[in-house]
Amino acid sequence: MTPPAFSEDDRHFMRVALSLSKRGLGNVWPNPSVGCVLVSPNGEIVGRGHTQSGGRPHAERVALDMAGAKARGATAYVTLEPCSHFGKSPPCATGLIEAGVARVVSALTDPDDRVSGRGHKMLEDASIKVDVGLFAEQARRINEGFLSRVEKGRPFVTLKLASTMDARSATNSGESQWITGPSAREEGHLLRATHDAILVGAKTVLADDPMLTCRLSGREHQSPVRIVLDRLGEMSTGAKLVQSASEISTWVVTSDAKFDELSEKFEKTSVKVIAARCDGDHLDLHDVMQKLGDAGLTRVLIESGGALASGLLKAGLVGRIVHFSAPSVMGGDGKAMIADLGIETLSDMPKFTRYSVRSVGKDIVLTYDYKTE
Amino acid sequence: MTPPAFSEDDRHFMRVALSLSKRGLGNVWPNPSVGCVLVSPNGEIVGRGHTQSGGRPHAERVALDMAGAKARGATAYVTLEPCSHFGKSPPCATGLIEAGVARVVSALTDPDDRVSGRGHKMLEDASIKVDVGLFAEQARRINEGFLSRVEKGRPFVTLKLASTMDARSATNSGESQWITGPSAREEGHLLRATHDAILVGAKTVLADDPMLTCRLSGREHQSPVRIVLDRLGEMSTGAKLVQSASEISTWVVTSDAKFDELSEKFEKTSVKVIAARCDGDHLDLHDVMQKLGDAGLTRVLIESGGALASGLLKAGLVGRIVHFSAPSVMGGDGKAMIADLGIETLSDMPKFTRYSVRSVGKDIVLTYDYKTE
Repeated sequence: MTPPAFSEDDRHFMRVALSLSKRGLGNVWPNPSVGCVLVSPNGEIVGRGHTQSGGRPHAERVALDMAGAKARGATAYVTLEPCSHFGKSPPCATGLIEAGVARVVSALTDPDDRVSGRGHKMLEDASIKVDVGLFAEQARRINEGFLSRVEKGRPFVTLKLASTMDARSATNSGESQWITGPSAREEGHLLRATHDAILVGAKTVLADDPMLTCRLSGREHQSPVRIVLDRLGEMSTGAKLVQSASEISTWVVTSDAKFDELSEKFEKTSVKVIAARCDGDHLDLHDVMQKLGDAGLTRVLIESGGALASGLLKAGLVGRIVHFSAPSVMGGDGKAMIADLGIETLSDMPKFTRYSVRSVGKDIVLTYDYKTE
Repeated sequence: MTPPAFSEDDRHFMRVALSLSKRGLGNVWPNPSVGCVLVSPNGEIVGRGHTQSGGRPHAERVALDMAGAKARGATAYVTLEPCSHFGKSPPCATGLIEAGVARVVSALTDPDDRVSGRGHKMLEDASIKVDVGLFAEQARRINEGFLSRVEKGRPFVTLKLASTMDARSATNSGESQWITGPSAREEGHLLRATHDAILVGAKTVLADDPMLTCRLSGREHQSPVRIVLDRLGEMSTGAKLVQSASEISTWVVTSDAKFDELSEKFEKTSVKVIAARCDGDHLDLHDVMQKLGDAGLTRVLIESGGALASGLLKAGLVGRIVHFSAPSVMGGDGKAMIADLGIETLSDMPKFTRYSVRSVGKDIVLTYDYKTE
């Protein structure tokens, strides 16, 4: 089968749809974050939408409502296959058919069993022309969280690191505020806003008693779920994360052995306790991620110390590294941003590909994607 | 005094002169590397030149010879004040006067006592219009080696580092070939070509027996002086650096105490032995650099292990860091690219400013300049 030929206009409008689709990231789990643009036969955008907070309404519904009668004969650009099943609302494929859309350009087939191919087929059965695959790679990257959960049962994991140019995250005495500048820290908060959850180790909570909220002006409501890995049950009920759990979700992941004890400890708080398997002296990180996937999370941001970072890398669970690097030098006695990995030969190193490098104030931010091949 | 007003043409031609001036870097020590462009009154470039290998002829002489009679009435753009003293050749100021140049635009006053201001004054006394200061900062940066030697008596020091994204330069077992890719390594050879000398510790020689030459096709003749810091006199006469010393200079810096012994050891070779003070168990790096300055070096590239890098940083001797960073992760048990610095608080860290960040193949190269203020 030869792939469909897409025009320059198609590319333009799909880019708009992809851009819209990013707006929902962090706010729509367990749903994908989709963008939709409706374009009339004369090339005018008559509707646009993205998945709304909480996952509903869907992007197509928003765009169709905006277009009204103008949707008739229009082309719909969608970043993911329209849904075909009745859930909390009627399927989007039905909506597009009823509105009289003439053509659907779709970036990606939805791997969700309830949809996979059926949405596209419903449209074709209604004599709508369907072209699939435009900017599929970009659409995959935006929805890697949703796709990871559907395909692997676990969220996509982004590891955030901040260090000196020689990869030190704190002095030996523990001083780390602030290695990077205000612009880099602001970008860090934007990362929080676009993730479903932020995960730290109990040690970080004991040491810093952080709030882990998104403190960007106007985006405070986009604070993600705050998750603490606490195998030993060390976090106190007085911690800020516990005290504020009724406003912003706080979850604790502990060992099966500690589950009952912690459930009791946090009974009168809004903290949710999750049990995961242990692997010797550590929580089994694969099981932790599986449990977080079960709970609906698609995008998890790690803001941990070097030990957890190392554990996740060893387990092959890190899909992306976002590294803020400052123009200072701390020396080998500073705290390593990634702890021991036990690498003997260079070929054993986890390999990444650089996705981007950018200036943020005096610092730089480097984005690396895990290399699967 | 209001600074002279420079036109867009002035800027353009000075940029050409600055670009020319870079060509001599690494090949003209102890001289500065200067660029000169001669522009006729109708805006045509009639002469161009840069300091030739070994430091002579000077840029102005090359440009004047090219221009011949067309130099009359021309404007000369020079990246450093023309010399005013009779050395091995007549002063360039005299050459510009005799050729009938009408105006001289100069980036920088030469801090060398034999010139400083006198070159510009000779020109003005001959009724030539002289405008000083165009792109002074850029000219300073290109000639920072020459300026460092004149102003501080020591060469400008560039520290070259190559590591994983977590700043590891080798596995614990010592494997380091190759962390960065072929493009980054090629850029490393270009760095060698533009430096007067490359400096390593004796440990590197004992471990790798390197040649430390520039292996870029067509630039092999630009291999810098190879310097080994060898306080204990450990390098053997069988080392490649010693065996090839008659073709490419090899210098050994040792302690005062070991000077006689090493002079005798290398008597029948072409190796030059230099003595420097000791500071406890280490060579006094300030004294080492002073001795290298005395020997005429202006630009020294460090390709050492983490210990020497740390020593130079502690001594405040590193003017620039060029860091090649690969998209791999080694973990905290890898070898740190910079050894312990004994930093207690963040404010004690050596601070740099990022000058540039660029892709080289799959790696990036970051350039940091030492922050003096």
